[in-house]
Amino acid sequence: MCTINPDLQQERNGATFNPYELTIWWDGGTEKYEKRKALEKLFLEDPELKDDLPLSYMSHKQIYENSVRKAVLIAKKLRDLRDIGELSVDTYTALLGGTLGCALLKEGNPLSVHFVMFVPTILGQGTIKQQIEWLSKAWELNIIGTYAQTELGHGTFLRGLETRADYDEKAQEFVLNSPTLTAYKWWPGGLGHTANYAVVVAQLYTMRKFRSLAPFIVQIRDEETHMPMPGVDIGEIGPKLGMKSGNNGYLGFKNVRVPLNHMLMKNQQVLCDGTYIPPKNSALTYGTMMFVRVVLIRDASLALAKASTIAVRYSAVRRQSPIDPNKPEPQIMDHTTQQLKLFPQVAKAIVFKANGDIIYDMYSHVSQEIEKGALERLPEMHALSCCLKAVCSADAASGVEICRLACGGHGYMDCSNFPTLYGMSTAVCTYEGENTVMLLQTARYLVKAYGQAALNPHVQLVPTVAYIKKVIEEPEFVGFDGSSEAIVEAFQYVAANKIRIAYERLEQQMREGAILEVATNRCGIEMIQAAELHGRAFLALTALTELQALSQKVSPALSEIFQWLLELYLVDACLQRIGDFLRFIRLTEQDVSGLESHLQECLKRLRPNVVTLVDGFDLHDRILDSALGAYDGNVYEKIFAAAKKSPLNKEAFNGSFHKYLRPLMKSNL
Amino acid sequence: MCTINPDLQQERNGATFNPYELTIWWDGGTEKYEKRKALEKLFLEDPELKDDLPLSYMSHKQIYENSVRKAVLIAKKLRDLRDIGELSVDTYTALLGGTLGCALLKEGNPLSVHFVMFVPTILGQGTIKQQIEWLSKAWELNIIGTYAQTELGHGTFLRGLETRADYDEKAQEFVLNSPTLTAYKWWPGGLGHTANYAVVVAQLYTMRKFRSLAPFIVQIRDEETHMPMPGVDIGEIGPKLGMKSGNNGYLGFKNVRVPLNHMLMKNQQVLCDGTYIPPKNSALTYGTMMFVRVVLIRDASLALAKASTIAVRYSAVRRQSPIDPNKPEPQIMDHTTQQLKLFPQVAKAIVFKANGDIIYDMYSHVSQEIEKGALERLPEMHALSCCLKAVCSADAASGVEICRLACGGHGYMDCSNFPTLYGMSTAVCTYEGENTVMLLQTARYLVKAYGQAALNPHVQLVPTVAYIKKVIEEPEFVGFDGSSEAIVEAFQYVAANKIRIAYERLEQQMREGAILEVATNRCGIEMIQAAELHGRAFLALTALTELQALSQKVSPALSEIFQWLLELYLVDACLQRIGDFLRFIRLTEQDVSGLESHLQECLKRLRPNVVTLVDGFDLHDRILDSALGAYDGNVYEKIFAAAKKSPLNKEAFNGSFHKYLRPLMKSNL
Repeated sequence: MCTINPDLQQERNGATFNPYELTIWWDGGTEKYEKRKALEKLFLEDPELKDDLPLSYMSHKQIYENSVRKAVLIAKKLRDLRDIGELSVDTYTALLGGTLGCALLKEGNPLSVHFVMFVPTILGQGTIKQQIEWLSKAWELNIIGTYAQTELGHGTFLRGLETRADYDEKAQEFVLNSPTLTAYKWWPGGLGHTANYAVVVAQLYTMRKFRSLAPFIVQIRDEETHMPMPGVDIGEIGPKLGMKSGNNGYLGFKNVRVPLNHMLMKNQQVLCDGTYIPPKNSALTYGTMMFVRVVLIRDASLALAKASTIAVRYSAVRRQSPIDPNKPEPQIMDHTTQQLKLFPQVAKAIVFKANGDIIYDMYSHVSQEIEKGALERLPEMHALSCCLKAVCSADAASGVEICRLACGGHGYMDCSNFPTLYGMSTAVCTYEGENTVMLLQTARYLVKAYGQAALNPHVQLVPTVAYIKKVIEEPEFVGFDGSSEAIVEAFQYVAANKIRIAYERLEQQMREGAILEVATNRCGIEMIQAAELHGRAFLALTALTELQALSQKVSPALSEIFQWLLELYLVDACLQRIGDFLRFIRLTEQDVSGLESHLQECLKRLRPNVVTLVDGFDLHDRILDSALGAYDGNVYEKIFAAAKKSPLNKEAFNGSFHKYLRPLMKSNL
Repeated sequence: MCTINPDLQQERNGATFNPYELTIWWDGGTEKYEKRKALEKLFLEDPELKDDLPLSYMSHKQIYENSVRKAVLIAKKLRDLRDIGELSVDTYTALLGGTLGCALLKEGNPLSVHFVMFVPTILGQGTIKQQIEWLSKAWELNIIGTYAQTELGHGTFLRGLETRADYDEKAQEFVLNSPTLTAYKWWPGGLGHTANYAVVVAQLYTMRKFRSLAPFIVQIRDEETHMPMPGVDIGEIGPKLGMKSGNNGYLGFKNVRVPLNHMLMKNQQVLCDGTYIPPKNSALTYGTMMFVRVVLIRDASLALAKASTIAVRYSAVRRQSPIDPNKPEPQIMDHTTQQLKLFPQVAKAIVFKANGDIIYDMYSHVSQEIEKGALERLPEMHALSCCLKAVCSADAASGVEICRLACGGHGYMDCSNFPTLYGMSTAVCTYEGENTVMLLQTARYLVKAYGQAALNPHVQLVPTVAYIKKVIEEPEFVGFDGSSEAIVEAFQYVAANKIRIAYERLEQQMREGAILEVATNRCGIEMIQAAELHGRAFLALTALTELQALSQKVSPALSEIFQWLLELYLVDACLQRIGDFLRFIRLTEQDVSGLESHLQECLKRLRPNVVTLVDGFDLHDRILDSALGAYDGNVYEKIFAAAKKSPLNKEAFNGSFHKYLRPLMKSNL
C-alpha cells in the first residue's frame, strides 16, 4: 500500500470526530454499510471490470465495444447474485445508476435502460398476461429492451410526438410509421446497437380516429442475427458531452407491423375491432416521473460528494501562492477564497442527502395514498419534485464546476475525473424534464395556491405551501437576527413575495386581455424565480429540521460539525440571494455585514475537519477515479502515472514526425 | 445550395437593419472584412483541411496525428503567403488563435505555441545576436519550439518553480535539472511529440548562488531522428476537457547541459566567469502578460458570438411547448424564459467586443509610454487587465453553457459544437492567470487607491479608479431613475463601496495585529468582490460610451438596436447584482420593478432582429461547426447527417453482438 501524503495525514490526525460515524448515516445504517462494502468488493476487485486504458484514450467505437463487454459481465454477475438469492433493489440501483455503476461504466451502461425503463414500463403498463409473456424473457436477458419516446423534433411536449400507430382491423395489427425526419425516435439509451426490443410511444389511431398516446412493444432487431427488422431504420446518435458509452440511438419506422397484443393495455385498451377504451385515471402516470425526480435529488448529493472529495483532498495537498511571505507556500485550502469555493459544496452534499431522504419518505407516503385512490397530495408532491429536481441538479452541476475550477489546470485534465463528473451531472439539468420547464410547472401550482389564499382567508393550504398564507396574513417580517431559524423564515417570506409578484403580474396581464397561457409566458421570468425560491425555501427548512434532528442522534463532536455545516449552508444560500432578501425584508447594513462575518466564521470552523468530512462520504478510489482525489493523496505521482498510460507515450516519437514534421522542417534548408 | 429553413428565412425577412452593417463594424472596416473573407476562402475551401470524420469519433492518438497533418499544412500555407508578401500579423492571429484557427483545428494546434510564445520570447528576451541566430530558423520552421514554464507542482507563483540551471564556469555551460517530480514542466502546448526546442524557465544559480529566474533555449529532441536528447524525459500529459489536440507535454531534466549563449540575455546577463548582471527594469515583463489578457477579452466576445449564434438560430427553428393551446407549438425563442437566456449573451458579445477594442487602444497607448520610460500608468493598466480577464472569461464560459442548456438535449450532443466551445472557453478562466488570483491582484491595487483617496483629499487618482474619490466625497447616491447613465453611475457607487468594505476590514485585521498579507487572505472574499465590481463598473461605463458613440455612426435602424442592446446589457448586469445595488443605494420597490419591466421590454424589442443580429457576426458555418447553428437552419437534417458519420453506423450491427450480447441472451434458454 502507498504511504499517505503527509499533509493529508496531518489533516486526518487533527479531526475532532470519527468519519465512520458520518459514513453510517450517509449509508443509512450499519447493515446497508456492510452490504455496500461487500458489493464494492465483489465488483471493484474483479480484474475483468477494470480498464487498463482509460476511456478518453479510446475511439468512440472502442468505447462502445468495451462498454458492452463490461455491461454483459455486470449483468451476468447480477444474475448470479439473483440465483443465490442475494439480489435486492438496492443492488440494482447501485449498479445501474448509483456510485458503483458509475465506477464500473463511468460514461453510462448500454443495458441500463433495459432495467430502469423497459422492465418497469411493462410492469406498470402491461396487463398481467403481457407481464407473464415479457417479463421473464426480460429478466433472463433473453431479450434486451429500451424505451423510445423522445423524437428528433419533440421532447418535453409529449402531445407533439409524430410517430404514429394505425390499427389495421383486418390484420389485427398496428402499423408504425415515422412520417417525417423529426418523427425519428432519438436518445434512447442502448437503442443504437444493443437492444433488440423497444417500448415505443406513438400516436394511436383506430378506425381512422386519433385516440391517445400509447406504448407498444416492438421488435427492432432479429434475435439470431441482430440485423434490424424490415422497415426499421436504426443506429446511434453519435458522441455527446457525457454518457459517452450509453449507446443512445435513433429509430425510424416504415410500415412496421406489430400484433394487437403488443400494445401495453393495462390502462387503455384497443379491442380486435378497433374499439378504443380510454384509461380510467391519467394521474397515475405521474408516479414514475415523480419517482425518477426524487432519485435525481439523491444523485445531486452524490455528484457534490464526489466533486468536493476530490477538490478538498487536492486542496490539502497542493501548495501554492504564499499568504505570509516569510513562510513556505501554504496548502491552497488555507486561502479563504478557496474555502468559499469548496466548503459550501460539502455542506450542499449533506443537505441534499438529508433532503433526498425526506422527499423519498414523502413520495412513498403519497404513493401509498394514491394506491388507495387518494389523489389530494399528488399535485403538491408533483410541484415540489419538479422545482427540487431543477434546483438541486443546477446546484450540483455548478458545484462540480466550482470544484473543478478550484483545482486549476489539473482539474482540467481528464485524469481529475471532473470532465466526466460534469458531463454526467449537467445532463440532469436537461433530462427527465428540462429545468426551466420544471420550474414553470411548479410556478403554475404556486400562483394557483397564492390565488386561493389571497381570495379566501379560510382556505387551508397543503403543508409545503402553507407559508404563503402566513405571509399574506403577516406581510411584514420582523426581528431578523441572523439565526438559522430567521434565515429559514426569511426564505419563506422571500418565496411568498416572489410568488405574489408572479401572481399579480399574471393577473395584470389577464386584465389587459391575455389568456392565462399567454400571460404565463409573458410572466415567465417572474414564474421561474418564484418556483426557484419556493424550492430554496423548502431546502432551507429541511436543512434546518433534518440536521438539527440528526445532531441529537450523533456524538457531540459530529453534532457540532453538523451545526456549522447547517449554518454555512443557510448563510451562503441567503447571501447568494441577498438581493431578494433586501428587497422584501428590512435588513440593515449590520445585518448584511453580520451574515458575511458569519459565513467566514463557518469556513474557519469547518477548516480543521473538512478532509475528514469528505472521508466520511467513504467514496472508493475507483468511484472517484481521480488522480487528484485518491485517499492516499499522492496527487502528483498519480497524475504522472495517468499520463504514462497515453498510447502516444508508448513510443519515443510519433510516426507523424517522419510523415509531416521532418519534411516541413527540412523543406527550406 | 440548401434551401433556407422557412422559419429562419421569415426572421431574416422581418429584420429592420442590414446585417452587413454590423459585420463591417465587427470586422473593423471593409478592408479587414475583405481580407478575412479571402483568408477564409483560402483555408476553409482547402479539401485537405477538412475532416471527413469528426474528431469525437477518433482515438486520442488519431486526434494528434490528424492535428499534426493539418498544422503542417497550415504552416506551409502561411509560409507561401509570406513568400508572396501577403502575410500580416492579423493573418497569424486569425490562424493561430482566432476564429479561423479554431475552424481548422478546433481542439488546438500543436504548432501554436511555436508562433505565439517561442518566437515572441526570443524576440522579447534575446539579444540581437541571439535573435539573429534563432529567429530565422524559427520563422523557417527548421526548428519547432515551445515555451516551458509551468511545472507539475507549480503554476501561478513563479518563484516556486523548482527546475534549476547551475552555471558550470569551467565548461561555460548551464546544467539543467528537475530535482523532484513536481519540478517537471507540465502543460506546454506542442511539447509532447511536436517541438524539438523549448524556452525553459529555470532558477538560475551562478557561483553557487541563487540569482533569479531565467529563460534558456534548450534542444529537447534530435533534429534528425526526433529522439529525446540525453537526459531529457519527455511525453504528453494525456487527455483534457478541451484543447485535445494541443499536444501539451511534460519535460524533466537530468544533468542536461546547455551552452552559455543559450540563456536569453537581453534583460539579465551571465558572464563567462559566472558574474551575474541583473535586469535594469523588471516591470517590462508585465507587457506580454497584459497583451495576452487584452486578447483574451476579445476571445470572450468571440466565444459568446459563436454560442449565441448557434442557440439563436436553433431557437428560431425548434418548435416546442405551446404558449397558446389553440395554436401550434411556437418557435422556442418566443418563450420569454428562452429570450432571457439568449439575448443577454448576444448583448455581451457586442459589449465585450467594444470593450476589447477600447482596452486594446489603452494597452497600445500605455505600451508606447512604457517604451519611452513612462511607467506611471502600468499598475493601473495591469490592475484593469487582470479583473477584466477574470470577469469576461467567466461570463463567456457561463454564457456558452447557458446557450448550450437552452438548446436542451441537442445542445448536449458533440455535433452542436457546444462541448468543444465550452472546453475552450472555460479553459481561459484558468490559464494566463487563474481568475481568483487575477481578482486578488486587482483588489490589492484598488484598496491601495482607496487608502490614498481616503487619507488625502488632494490626491489625484488615475482615470479608471477616479470614481472612488467621487464616491468618498459624495457617499450618497441620489436620483436613481433607471436610465443607462444612472445604472453606470450606480455601478461605480457599488464598486466604490465594495472597495471601501475590503479596505476597512483589511485595516481592521491589521489593527488586530495581522500583517498585510495575512489580513489580505482573511479578507479574500471582500477583495475578490471588490475587484469583480470594479471590472463590472468599467464594462458598464465602456458599454455606455462606446455603444452610444457607435450609434452616432451607423444607420438609424442599427442605432436603435445598439440602444436596446446597451439597455439590455446594463439592466441585466444590474439585476444580476441587485443585492449590491439595494445594499448601497436607496432603491424603492418601484425602482426594482421598473428594472424588471425594462428588462422584459428590451427582450421584446430585440426579438424581431435577433436572428439578423447574430447573422451580423458573420461566422462561417465551418467556424460554428454546429448542426444546430448553420446559416441555412436545416437543423434536423444536419444532426442526422452527423450521426450517420459514426463508424458504428457503418455496420448494420456491431461485432460485440456475437462476442458478448448473443452469448448472454442465449445462456439461459
